[in-house]
Amino acid sequence: MRPVLLLLGCDLFGGNISKAISPALGIEVFHNFTLLHDDIMDNAPLRRLKPTVHNKWNISIAILSGDAMLIEAYKLMMKVENHQLRQVMDIFNDTAILVCEGQQLDMNYETKKQVTIHDYLEMISMKTAVLLGASLQIGALISGADFKDTQHLYNFGKYLGIAFQLQDDILDVYGDKNKFGKQVGGDIISNKKTYLLLKALELEKDNNTNSLVELFNDKNIPPEEKVEAVTSIFNLLKVRDFAQEEIQSFYDKAMKEIAEINLPEDRKSVLVSFSKTLMVREI
Amino acid sequence: MRPVLLLLGCDLFGGNISKAISPALGIEVFHNFTLLHDDIMDNAPLRRLKPTVHNKWNISIAILSGDAMLIEAYKLMMKVENHQLRQVMDIFNDTAILVCEGQQLDMNYETKKQVTIHDYLEMISMKTAVLLGASLQIGALISGADFKDTQHLYNFGKYLGIAFQLQDDILDVYGDKNKFGKQVGGDIISNKKTYLLLKALELEKDNNTNSLVELFNDKNIPPEEKVEAVTSIFNLLKVRDFAQEEIQSFYDKAMKEIAEINLPEDRKSVLVSFSKTLMVREI
Repeated sequence: MRPVLLLLGCDLFGGNISKAISPALGIEVFHNFTLLHDDIMDNAPLRRLKPTVHNKWNISIAILSGDAMLIEAYKLMMKVENHQLRQVMDIFNDTAILVCEGQQLDMNYETKKQVTIHDYLEMISMKTAVLLGASLQIGALISGADFKDTQHLYNFGKYLGIAFQLQDDILDVYGDKNKFGKQVGGDIISNKKTYLLLKALELEKDNNTNSLVELFNDKNIPPEEKVEAVTSIFNLLKVRDFAQEEIQSFYDKAMKEIAEINLPEDRKSVLVSFSKTLMVREI
Repeated sequence: MRPVLLLLGCDLFGGNISKAISPALGIEVFHNFTLLHDDIMDNAPLRRLKPTVHNKWNISIAILSGDAMLIEAYKLMMKVENHQLRQVMDIFNDTAILVCEGQQLDMNYETKKQVTIHDYLEMISMKTAVLLGASLQIGALISGADFKDTQHLYNFGKYLGIAFQLQDDILDVYGDKNKFGKQVGGDIISNKKTYLLLKALELEKDNNTNSLVELFNDKNIPPEEKVEAVTSIFNLLKVRDFAQEEIQSFYDKAMKEIAEINLPEDRKSVLVSFSKTLMVREI
């Protein structure tokens, strides 16, 4: 998705997308560097149905391969015209640091007792959404677009990315198991602090109830039963509706940003319809 | 040492060293990123007498901190004038990849049966020496020096770096234990394939003897006895002299490179005397 967004960002302003190919590859190599190192941290045995690097080889090879990929990503990202080099690299650097910080926050939140919805939104923005924004913005810069316009495009991508991630949280619980690629309820089983869980905990706190806390403290409850019980509480508290409202609010923000871009409406229609597709996705 | 070399490279050509401060910091942050990740791979408990990051915190934090440091190194390295940006970054990228590849080779050689002296020299060139060369070259580029001259300075630093590393191998065995900072004989105890060991193995092979192989296969020999026995074989085969010749040859190569630089001799005298000090060091 990220390299395609970079090319789309370039094409949006009528840029020559052949000039955006190397940076598009750079974004993809960067993203895969983060996956490679994240998989070590998460002790993940599989990625895309194949053994992860640290699983197939060893941790040292996985660390070094990731390091080399990050450097290769820089080399690819630098393949832009001289007058665009600093602007492109500044965005790439700032985004890369945010992605690392987002990953660290994600790990911290696994054990942190009090995670607010604000914390969570900030974390998913850093870990996932800013790279989507940066992909679009870098593509736009390569096309020679006005910097203000590229900033609106960055924000559009970031807000859409947050909406996308929140939808992931919903699909994990409410997705059709025949369509959704992952195990339905996987987040509940692994005690992941998703938007739904954090919102439900917040509402239970307001109601002075603690059935969720009890459920998550019960180490002996069978996974399927836990998914069912937690989902019932989610339903009772209508957290799906809250999440849907939050998604709508980020979608609206994204649309406001794209409206600010100084281009005829028909040029923006690809991105607008792309956003609409994302909002009704089932997988 | 690396940031100082970068400043020296700039000063050599009469550059304004205040413009070289950020890239000098960048080189140091990069070097420390490699140490941080290497320490995970080597499972090292201490660095500079303090707990390593993965030891004090955990492996995930150490991986991520290193990643963030690599990105910060790029940010610092980019703080050069626009017309120098691409040249500086190209050298930094190419060097960074070599350092990673050198580390991978170093790990491979731990278990590889047949490591030649040529392999070893290539590995230490990549893992250690090229970063010294790049530090000098980047400093020189910032001063506005002619590119050809900066390449000679790079080679000077690289050859001197190889000589420096070979001297480390000698000091590890023949160093004065009251002056040398590490345990004398540490490389022998840990079966490290140094220049001395590889040369000795080569000579024993030519002589159809295999006392060294037997010593290294003996798992029950006490460390001190092993150091003594291996050192005796090193003495018998005069591998120290071979190493000294190799060092001299790389030192001469370094001197040839500096002679090619188009500057008055007195300007180069700082680097020449610095090189001489390195050659007679005892620690």
